[in-house]
Amino acid sequence: MSVTLADVARRAGVSPATASRALGGRPHVAPATRLRVHRAADELQFVVSPEASRLAGGSGGRVGVVVPHLAQWSCGAVLEGLEPVLRGAGVDVLLYGVGDAAARTAFFADLPARRRVDALVVLGTALDEHERGRLELMAVPVVAAAATGRQPGVHVDEHAAARHAVDHLLHLGHRRIGAVAAAGPLDGVLDGALEAFAAAHREALRGAGFPHEDLLVRVGRGASGAAEGAGRLLGLREPPTAVVASSDEVALGVVRTLGRARLRVPDDVSVVGLGDHPLAEAADLTTVCRPVREQGAEAARMVLAALVDGAVPPSVVLPSRLVVRGSTAPPRSA
Amino acid sequence: MSVTLADVARRAGVSPATASRALGGRPHVAPATRLRVHRAADELQFVVSPEASRLAGGSGGRVGVVVPHLAQWSCGAVLEGLEPVLRGAGVDVLLYGVGDAAARTAFFADLPARRRVDALVVLGTALDEHERGRLELMAVPVVAAAATGRQPGVHVDEHAAARHAVDHLLHLGHRRIGAVAAAGPLDGVLDGALEAFAAAHREALRGAGFPHEDLLVRVGRGASGAAEGAGRLLGLREPPTAVVASSDEVALGVVRTLGRARLRVPDDVSVVGLGDHPLAEAADLTTVCRPVREQGAEAARMVLAALVDGAVPPSVVLPSRLVVRGSTAPPRSA
Repeated sequence: MSVTLADVARRAGVSPATASRALGGRPHVAPATRLRVHRAADELQFVVSPEASRLAGGSGGRVGVVVPHLAQWSCGAVLEGLEPVLRGAGVDVLLYGVGDAAARTAFFADLPARRRVDALVVLGTALDEHERGRLELMAVPVVAAAATGRQPGVHVDEHAAARHAVDHLLHLGHRRIGAVAAAGPLDGVLDGALEAFAAAHREALRGAGFPHEDLLVRVGRGASGAAEGAGRLLGLREPPTAVVASSDEVALGVVRTLGRARLRVPDDVSVVGLGDHPLAEAADLTTVCRPVREQGAEAARMVLAALVDGAVPPSVVLPSRLVVRGSTAPPRSA
Repeated sequence: MSVTLADVARRAGVSPATASRALGGRPHVAPATRLRVHRAADELQFVVSPEASRLAGGSGGRVGVVVPHLAQWSCGAVLEGLEPVLRGAGVDVLLYGVGDAAARTAFFADLPARRRVDALVVLGTALDEHERGRLELMAVPVVAAAATGRQPGVHVDEHAAARHAVDHLLHLGHRRIGAVAAAGPLDGVLDGALEAFAAAHREALRGAGFPHEDLLVRVGRGASGAAEGAGRLLGLREPPTAVVASSDEVALGVVRTLGRARLRVPDDVSVVGLGDHPLAEAADLTTVCRPVREQGAEAARMVLAALVDGAVPPSVVLPSRLVVRGSTAPPRSA
């Protein structure tokens, strides 16, 4: 028993022509009326036919990009890879910031009534059950560019990335390797990556037969989180000779805290970050580079394929690579 | 003698109905045909009437945002301020990256034929004569969110920002204050800001009766530019006791180079950055905060006003403020 446009119009108390104009995003509809029609469509779970919603706006179609943290450099880098590929194909790129909880709730609440895009790319954020349900109601292809693989799309193997970091320190001869895991994407960590980081640290040390208990500390975001993490590791009875951080941002905070404790990097303690932040080179920080621009470009190619075929191609996992700089060295005892 | 749609259709060799569909971005036009029509419109400098182009796509209109460097944190922060204000007003935000010269040339070449937006916001980049001419052909409101004031919009007083930095060092008792000016927006410096930085440094030192010749060094971008700048200042017969950098990114590179020369910050040399980068707090860097999120939000409010009134409101200049952290102290001799 499928819902028709007439059902939506009746519920909203408008003519079918007005309901069509409102849902199509066309002019000459009062804002209050548009809201009422969208709400009725939402309540009835009315889904515009793919033909009707397809190529809704621009000449080559319209792709919405959902971005949790626009000011986070890695989200910007994904966008920098994605945008030229889509625009090169004549596709318009619409930006949807969902930075705070309110914006996110509002975005997904509006979604099924929003017929303005032909496909969506979701950046660096894991969707919950409810959010995935809302996306399905839109009946448009959705491609993820994120850390975890629950949503089809382009992913980076975060477990392998963290292993690169820990294995590098093991190869240098370190046995006591601390890990600082900071919560939150504002520290450069995308949703889901933190558990992979913790697991990789534990497995690498256990595999080498070295202790790992107490050597992983979980802290809050920002400079204070990084300082707290470094402080807790330094306060151990036997402090680590090396530290991996869940992001370059956290690693630089750890370096700062070590400096205040009169410990030199890498002479006294080695430090590895994750991400290859634009400032990592200037800071001479050893890190693991995630191919974020390529992630964006690949997500764009996938969404273009989906616009043609109607189905999202199989997921892709991109490799990361170790970048050795001056913040790591063999332990003093070696 | 104004150009009509019929002229464009004739030149492109299509019916006026097809020309209208192509320029309106509607479906059922072959890509090659669309291209031919847009090219004809471009060659004839055909301008769609404001009424026809207005509210071209989304229910509340469409604003294009032109961004030179998506991965640069300050551009992301401007977007983070801008996007929720526009979306809150029911306006779609379309993203146009113009990061490299080719993308920029293509964007401005396409522009007059591009009827897909009702207004534009141009981020962090100065437009040349030709580019401003292309924008005028579009006959839509254009708001700048940039350092310099040639284009109406929301600006930050870069001269005052640099003065905050130099004056802070003068108040601490420094007389020999070096300045490292790094070219390029990838170092966090928006177009036009660099000249303001150099002038502010010169004027502040001259006003205090202190030497300024040789104390400003201009370098290339990235970690190597910052290292070269710091190296040149350290190589002076009488090296400075403090350094201001044209961005926090450059300042952190300067701190690194000082460390390699076994000079401590701030004990031996004070360092001030510009921008209040997300990592400045973790690095304990004294800096000058530019209100980039507010700049984006204010630009969004201006463009919304322009969509209603048809004219861009008067330009706004936002203040910056000094943020004192641990990288500055009185000179050793004081």
